[in-house]
Amino acid sequence: MRIPILKLYNYLLISIQTEIDDQTAIQFQEDLLNEIHKTGSQGVVIDLTSVEVIDSFIAKVLGDVVTMSDLMGAKVVLTGIQPAVAMTLIELGIHMRNVPTALDLEQGLLKLHQELGE
Amino acid sequence: MRIPILKLYNYLLISIQTEIDDQTAIQFQEDLLNEIHKTGSQGVVIDLTSVEVIDSFIAKVLGDVVTMSDLMGAKVVLTGIQPAVAMTLIELGIHMRNVPTALDLEQGLLKLHQELGE
Repeated sequence: MRIPILKLYNYLLISIQTEIDDQTAIQFQEDLLNEIHKTGSQGVVIDLTSVEVIDSFIAKVLGDVVTMSDLMGAKVVLTGIQPAVAMTLIELGIHMRNVPTALDLEQGLLKLHQELGE
Repeated sequence: MRIPILKLYNYLLISIQTEIDDQTAIQFQEDLLNEIHKTGSQGVVIDLTSVEVIDSFIAKVLGDVVTMSDLMGAKVVLTGIQPAVAMTLIELGIHMRNVPTALDLEQGLLKLHQELGE
C-alpha cells in the first residue's frame, strides 16, 4: 500500500488515514522525497487527523522525513496530531521540537505561507 | 484499503494513486458520501492522474458517485484522466457526459470555483 501524495500549486498534501506499518512508512518516506524532487515543491503538509495510534518507529520515520525534506529545501508542517498520539510521542521521548505543527490542513497551509514568507 | 479523503476549506480532494479493486471502490463511494454529509462540502475533486487502467465496474462506480454527490448537493470534478483511461472508457461505451472534467487538480479546483459561482 502506498500513501497518496497530492500536488496542489507548489505544495504537496498528504493525509494519512490508515494504520501504517513499517514498510508503508519507509515507502512513504521515499515517495515523498522523490515527489519533492520531481515537482520542486517548497512546502509539504502531512495531516495526521485520522491517525489514532503511533509507535516509535513510525514517529522516527516521520521526524526523519521532516528533516530530510528540509535538507532538500521543502518545509514540512505536521497537522491534526490527536491527543492520544501527542501523549504517546511525549511518553516515547519524541518531542519533535523542530517540527512545525498546526491544528488542521487549512492552518497547516497558512503556516506554510507564513514560513515561506508568501 | 481505504482511499484517503482530504478536506480543504469547503472542498474535498481525493487522489486515487493505486489500482483499486471493486471492494475499495464501493468503500470509497460510501466514505465520500459520508464525508460530504459530515463536512457539508460543496465541491469534490477526484484526481485520477495516477490511474493507468480502469475497468467497467470502477468506471460505473465513479460515474455513480458523481451523480450521488450531485444529489446531495456537492459538485464533483474528475481530473487527470490519462489517455489510456479515456480510450478504455469510450471503448466501454462510458461517455461520462454529465461529468465535469479537468486536466489536473489545480484546473479542477478552478472549474469548481466557476461551477459554484465563487
